[in-house]
Amino acid sequence: MSMIVNRRDIDFLMYEVFDLEQILTTERYGDYDGQVITAVLDTAQTIAEDKFLPCAAKLDANEPTFDGTQVHIIPEVAEALAAYREAGFFSASFDEAVGGMQMPFMVSSAISGIFNCANIGIADYSFLTQANASMLNAYGNEIQKALFLPPMLAGRWFGTMCLSEPQAGSSLSDIRTKAEPDGQGRYLISGAKMWISGGDHALSENIIHMVLARIPGGPAGVKGLSLFIVPKVRVNDDGSLGADNNIALAGLNHKMGHRGTTNCLLNFGEKGDCYGTLIGEPHRGLSYMFHMMNEARIAVGYGAVMSGLAGYLYSLDYARSRPQGRHPHDKDPQSPQVMIIEHADVKRMLMAQKVYVEGGLSLVTYCAGLIDVQAVTQSVAEKAGLGLLLDILTPIAKSWPSEYCLEANKHAIQVLGGYGYTREYPVERFYRDNRLNHIHEGTHGIHGIDLLGRKVRMGGGAALDVLERGIGRTLKLAADVEILSGYADELDCAFKVLRKTAEDVAKTDNINLMMANATTYLDAFGHVVVAWMWLKQGLAAQKGLQKDKGEADFYEGKLAACRYFFRYELPTVYARFALVSSLDETCLDMNPEQFVGQ
Amino acid sequence: MSMIVNRRDIDFLMYEVFDLEQILTTERYGDYDGQVITAVLDTAQTIAEDKFLPCAAKLDANEPTFDGTQVHIIPEVAEALAAYREAGFFSASFDEAVGGMQMPFMVSSAISGIFNCANIGIADYSFLTQANASMLNAYGNEIQKALFLPPMLAGRWFGTMCLSEPQAGSSLSDIRTKAEPDGQGRYLISGAKMWISGGDHALSENIIHMVLARIPGGPAGVKGLSLFIVPKVRVNDDGSLGADNNIALAGLNHKMGHRGTTNCLLNFGEKGDCYGTLIGEPHRGLSYMFHMMNEARIAVGYGAVMSGLAGYLYSLDYARSRPQGRHPHDKDPQSPQVMIIEHADVKRMLMAQKVYVEGGLSLVTYCAGLIDVQAVTQSVAEKAGLGLLLDILTPIAKSWPSEYCLEANKHAIQVLGGYGYTREYPVERFYRDNRLNHIHEGTHGIHGIDLLGRKVRMGGGAALDVLERGIGRTLKLAADVEILSGYADELDCAFKVLRKTAEDVAKTDNINLMMANATTYLDAFGHVVVAWMWLKQGLAAQKGLQKDKGEADFYEGKLAACRYFFRYELPTVYARFALVSSLDETCLDMNPEQFVGQ
Repeated sequence: MSMIVNRRDIDFLMYEVFDLEQILTTERYGDYDGQVITAVLDTAQTIAEDKFLPCAAKLDANEPTFDGTQVHIIPEVAEALAAYREAGFFSASFDEAVGGMQMPFMVSSAISGIFNCANIGIADYSFLTQANASMLNAYGNEIQKALFLPPMLAGRWFGTMCLSEPQAGSSLSDIRTKAEPDGQGRYLISGAKMWISGGDHALSENIIHMVLARIPGGPAGVKGLSLFIVPKVRVNDDGSLGADNNIALAGLNHKMGHRGTTNCLLNFGEKGDCYGTLIGEPHRGLSYMFHMMNEARIAVGYGAVMSGLAGYLYSLDYARSRPQGRHPHDKDPQSPQVMIIEHADVKRMLMAQKVYVEGGLSLVTYCAGLIDVQAVTQSVAEKAGLGLLLDILTPIAKSWPSEYCLEANKHAIQVLGGYGYTREYPVERFYRDNRLNHIHEGTHGIHGIDLLGRKVRMGGGAALDVLERGIGRTLKLAADVEILSGYADELDCAFKVLRKTAEDVAKTDNINLMMANATTYLDAFGHVVVAWMWLKQGLAAQKGLQKDKGEADFYEGKLAACRYFFRYELPTVYARFALVSSLDETCLDMNPEQFVGQ
Repeated sequence: MSMIVNRRDIDFLMYEVFDLEQILTTERYGDYDGQVITAVLDTAQTIAEDKFLPCAAKLDANEPTFDGTQVHIIPEVAEALAAYREAGFFSASFDEAVGGMQMPFMVSSAISGIFNCANIGIADYSFLTQANASMLNAYGNEIQKALFLPPMLAGRWFGTMCLSEPQAGSSLSDIRTKAEPDGQGRYLISGAKMWISGGDHALSENIIHMVLARIPGGPAGVKGLSLFIVPKVRVNDDGSLGADNNIALAGLNHKMGHRGTTNCLLNFGEKGDCYGTLIGEPHRGLSYMFHMMNEARIAVGYGAVMSGLAGYLYSLDYARSRPQGRHPHDKDPQSPQVMIIEHADVKRMLMAQKVYVEGGLSLVTYCAGLIDVQAVTQSVAEKAGLGLLLDILTPIAKSWPSEYCLEANKHAIQVLGGYGYTREYPVERFYRDNRLNHIHEGTHGIHGIDLLGRKVRMGGGAALDVLERGIGRTLKLAADVEILSGYADELDCAFKVLRKTAEDVAKTDNINLMMANATTYLDAFGHVVVAWMWLKQGLAAQKGLQKDKGEADFYEGKLAACRYFFRYELPTVYARFALVSSLDETCLDMNPEQFVGQ
C-alpha cells in the first residue's frame, strides 16, 4: 500500500465516476489513452516515492535559511526537482504548441497531487512555476512567451506570484507597488511584496516573478492594478541571463507548515533599477489573475485533499498494524490485544477521513474534468454552462477540502495517539501543512462572500441552475437504485434548502447583514456538493460491484462511505442553513469593546 | 489588556455566575476573602507576565535537548519556576495541615490557568508536581508523606505520573512494569514507561515518579496494578538525598507542541537496582488513580481553555489594531481601510472563540467549584450528589474544551491570516499546544465510552438525574427573564433529546454497537452542558446589567455570546443525537480492507 496515493481510487474517479475516456476521444488529447496515462502516473509515483517522500521529514525539520546573501536548502530538494524536471512534468498541462505535454488537467492535477502528498515543501516550487507559466501563456505577448516559457516549462527557471504586500493581504485594492514606464517599453518596479512562496532560492537559474503593481495615474483600487513579468536576473533579448535585477530578499517568514518552501518578503528596486514588462493591457492585471484563479484554486483544493490523504493512508496503515486494547465485550485482560482498527471509534475516525479525503478528491477531480471539457467543447452554450458551473464550484473546491481535510488530519493524529502528536511520525506535519489552505488563494471568509454575494446571485441564479441540472441528472440515476434512492431524496431536499437559503438572504438590502454568515453558508453548501459527489461515487460503486465481484472490498468501502456521508455529514447542513436564512445579526452587532468588556 | 487572562471574566464567574462567596464563608476557607484572592491572582498574573510569558516563544523554538547524559533547558525556565516556587504556588491547593495554602480549587485552578496561558511548556512541570503530590497526600502513609510532601510542596522536588508504556498507551491492563518485593519493605522496579512529561531534567533537586506496576503473582489486567513512589535519586530516612536510583532516560519525544516540557521514555532498573515504595494496598493502584482523575481531568480541560484563551486574546487585540479592507457596502477604494474587527466574518471568528473559551472556562470553573463544595459540605446526601455530578461532568470538562478550544485556536490563526500561520506570531503555537489535549488523560474516544457506556447508565441514570435537577433550577430562573426564556425552552428540549438518546442506545444489548458512536454523543452532550453554562452566564449578565450600567460592554458581550451559543451552536446537536440514537452500524461494519480496497 502506497503512502502517497491510492491509484485504484484515482482510476475509479477518472474512468468510473467521471468520464476521462470521453475526453480522451477528442483530438486535443488524442495522444493519450488509458495505458499512456497509467504509465505517466507510474512515473510520477516512482519519482515521488523515491525522491520526494524520503526527505519530507528532513526538509520539515531543516527549513531553508538565509545568511543575508543566499538561501540555503538541503540538497535533496534540488535532486528531487531535477528528477521532476527530467520527467518533463513542468510542462505537463501545457499545449504541445508551446512545448508542453498537453495532458488533460484531470491527469496533470493527479500528478501534481501525488507530489503534493509526498512532499508539499518541494511540490510548492513546481506548482508556483506552472501557475506563473500558465498566466504568461494565456496573457503574455509572443515575445514574452518566446523568452520566458521555454525555460520555465523545462524547469530551468522557476516562477512566483507576487500579489500581497505587508499592508495589503486580502485587500488587493490597497496594493502600492509602483511600476513607472521607463520610456523604452519597460517599467521600473518598486515596492515590497509579502508572502512570496518560492520568492528566493538557488534551485533554478532564474526566478520569474508575476507582479501586481500600479502604473502612476491609473485608477485607484483594483481597477488600477497591472500585471508585470519581473525576473530576478534580467533576461537579454536572446534569452541569455543579464545583470541582477535588484530584487532583494528582505527576510524569510517561518511558517507552521510548508516549511520546505521559502516564503519571502521581497523588496523590488530598493537598491537599484528593477525592470519588468507589462502583461497585456495596463490596469487589467486583476482580471487576468481572476481568469486563472479557477485553476489555481482547484489546485489549492487538490493540495488540501492530498495533505489529508497523506494522513489518512498513514493512519490507516498504522491502525492495521498497531495492537492495543480489546473490544468492549471482551473483559478478559489475558486475551490478545486487537489491532486498533478493530475499535469502532478508530474506524469512525478512519471513515471520517475517507469521506473527507475521497469526497474532496472527487470534487477536485470533477472540477479538473470540467476544465478539460471546457477546453475541447465546440458548443458555445456548453462552454458557457461549464464556465458557470466552474464559477460556482471553485470556492467550494478550494474551501471545502481546506476545512474538512484539515479535520481529517486531526483525526489521523488521534488514530496514532501520543505517537501522532510527535514529530517522530509524519501525521502532525500534514496537519501543520494543511492549515495553510484556509488562508492563501483567497481566505475562507472571502470565498464565503464570493459564493453568497456573487456566485449564487449572478445571472439571476444562472450558476445555481446549471448546478441543479447536474445534480438532477445524478438524482434521476440514483432514484432507480434501491440502496441509493433514499440518499437521492435527501440530496434533493438539501439542495432545495440551499437554494431557499440563498433566496432568504437576498431579501435584505443590507449587504453587510447579507454577508454576515457567508462562511457558514460556504461550509454547508460544500457539504451538499460533496454529498452529490458521494452519490456519484455510490452509483459507480454499485455498477462496479455488479460487474466485478473480485473488487468487492473497494466497492463496498465506497458504498459504506457514501452511506456514512449521508448519515453522519449531510444532516448537519440544516442547522447551518437555518442560521444563514435567519439573517442573524449577533456577530455583526458586536462592538469591539464587547468581546472582553474593555 | 492582558494577553493571558481576562480578570474581569474570572471574577464574573467566581462571584456572579458561581458562588465562591458562599464557599468562602466555610471554616475550611476562612482565611480567604475576595480581597485576598484578588491579591493572590495579582501575584500570579505578575509572575506569569514577567517570567513565563516573555520566554514562551523562545522555549518553543529551543526545546530541551538530551546529550546522552543530561537534559538541557533554556535558563529562563528555571528562573520562572523559581518565582513560582517563591510565591508558594506549588502548595496552593494543599491543606494547611501539610503546609499548604488551602485555597479553594476554584482559585488554585485559576492560578494554574494563568500560568498555562502564559507558557504551557513551563506550567506543565508545576502541574505534574502538584498532581503527583495530591495523590501522595491522599493515599500515601505518614512516613511517605513526611518524606516526600514537604519538598514537593516547596517546589524543590518535582513529580511525574508514569502510567503508559510503549505497548500500552490507553490500554492500561497491558502494563508490564514489574515491582518485586525486596523483603525489606521496598520493591525493585523494572520496566519502560512512555510519554512521561517532566520525566527528566535538572530543574529540581529530585524527581518523584508515581509509577503503576505489577507485583508478581497478582491478578491480570488492571486489577493487578499497584502504585509506587519511585524517586530519581534515592531518599534517606532523614529526607536527605542518597544514591542514584537507576532510572535511565532512554530518549526524549519531540512533540508538535508543549515543546518546553521534556517528554520521556524512561527505563527503570535497567542498569542497577531501582527502588520504590508501595502506596496504599497492593493491586489497588488504578483505583487510587481514578480517585484523583476528576481533578486531573478538569485541570486538563482548564489547560485546553487557557490555550484557547491565549489565541482569543491575541487575535482580538490584533483584530482591533490591524487595518485592512472595507465594508461590503463601501465600494470606494480610496476610503480609509477599517480595522479588521469591523468585518463581520472576523467578528464571527472572534465570537466563536469567545463562546468556546468562555463557555469552557465557565464549565471548568463550575466543576472546580463543585469540588470545593464537596470538600466542605457536611451533608452525606449532598456529597453523593456532587460526586455523581462530577462523575458525569468530568468527561465533558476534559473533552469539550479540548475539541472546541482547539477550534478556537484555528480561528485565531485565521484572524491573523498569513501572519497567524507563521512562528513570528504566537497563535500557531497555541494551536500546536492545544492539539495534545484530546490525547492525554484519556483519549477523546475513551471519554465517549466512559460517558455513554458508564456515566449516563450508572445507578439507573442517577447522575443524569442530578444534572437534570441542576439544569432545571437554571431553567426556572431563566423562564422569568424575557430575553432568556426562549433559550431556556431550547435547552430544556435539547436536554430531553440528550436523555432520550441515552435511552435509545441502551435498547441494544450489542455493547460494541452501543458504543460505536459514543464520541459523537460526547461532543453533543458537551454542547448541551455548555449551553447551560451560557444560560447561567446570561442570567448573571442580565442581573449585572441592571445593577451596573458602567459595565454595559462586558455584560452586553456576555448576553450576545449567550445568544450566539443558542443560535449558532446548540442547534447542531440534533443531527448528532439523531445519529447516535439510530445505532448506526456503518463504521462498526467496516472491514480493514474496505477502507482503500486492499
